[in-house]
Amino acid sequence: MTDFTIRPATRADDDTIWAIIGPAFAAGETYVVPRDISRPDALAYWHSPGHHVFVAEDANGTVGTYYLRANQKGGGAHVANCGYIVRPDTAGRGVARAMASHSFEEARRRGFRAMQFNFVVSSNERAVRLWQSLGFDIVGRLPGAFEHPRLGFVDAFVMFRALTPA
Amino acid sequence: MTDFTIRPATRADDDTIWAIIGPAFAAGETYVVPRDISRPDALAYWHSPGHHVFVAEDANGTVGTYYLRANQKGGGAHVANCGYIVRPDTAGRGVARAMASHSFEEARRRGFRAMQFNFVVSSNERAVRLWQSLGFDIVGRLPGAFEHPRLGFVDAFVMFRALTPA
Repeated sequence: MTDFTIRPATRADDDTIWAIIGPAFAAGETYVVPRDISRPDALAYWHSPGHHVFVAEDANGTVGTYYLRANQKGGGAHVANCGYIVRPDTAGRGVARAMASHSFEEARRRGFRAMQFNFVVSSNERAVRLWQSLGFDIVGRLPGAFEHPRLGFVDAFVMFRALTPA
Repeated sequence: MTDFTIRPATRADDDTIWAIIGPAFAAGETYVVPRDISRPDALAYWHSPGHHVFVAEDANGTVGTYYLRANQKGGGAHVANCGYIVRPDTAGRGVARAMASHSFEEARRRGFRAMQFNFVVSSNERAVRLWQSLGFDIVGRLPGAFEHPRLGFVDAFVMFRALTPA
């Protein structure tokens, strides 16, 4: 497994972040984001208020990005949420797993007690297996909640794991 | 059961809406909103971009308010989401049920195929029973996802129902 450097993103990373998130949103198979979202809107979404954005780099440049945020406010603010996207040509090299491990540490450090994914598309089997291997349980199934561009209406999963205190 | 008039809210309703949502947020037992949220922030949240806000009225004035929105964008935009709050001194008179029925019709009219509640606090048993009586299933359980001011960490439910086409 390759070593990755994962660090907080700055707005100077916008070009490489867009090069990673743009194709994923345009494909429309994993994120509940409009497929025709513009670069400014996509970057505004990724950098939403309350999002902590990170990039993963190796010798070949930026290979992935993720955000970490509180999933809810008020009485729900102890549960974190993340979104991860890997550069298409680096899939299968452990980038997502490395970012996930980093995000768990980062979430613990910030005092979160658990992490929740609100919308894991069931046809994204690779992601479901990855999250399960990293301690996530499927705690909910949203029937037909995602309209997949090729498969039509498919279920989405809510996934959840506790984070042991730092 | 009393008859209620339910109509779209305008900013002229802000005083009465705040008189309804303010106490609910301050109590902190049902919504994932900071208990000390200010009036401007609470109204900005209730009237968030993409929210359609309604008020329910009877002979005594405004007795409840709800918002309707798309729960997700992109491939998830066919599922609606709502939040409902009843004026405390009118609980038990069918206001929530009337607003829910209205919201189902409104959601159908706008082309939504289903409705999802993302975070129903499990200790809010009255709400859980009401939603179940209105066709919602518990499709997910979020362990300890809500820190209740009196009960500590309690589970929250994800609830879901299909909407038959208009």
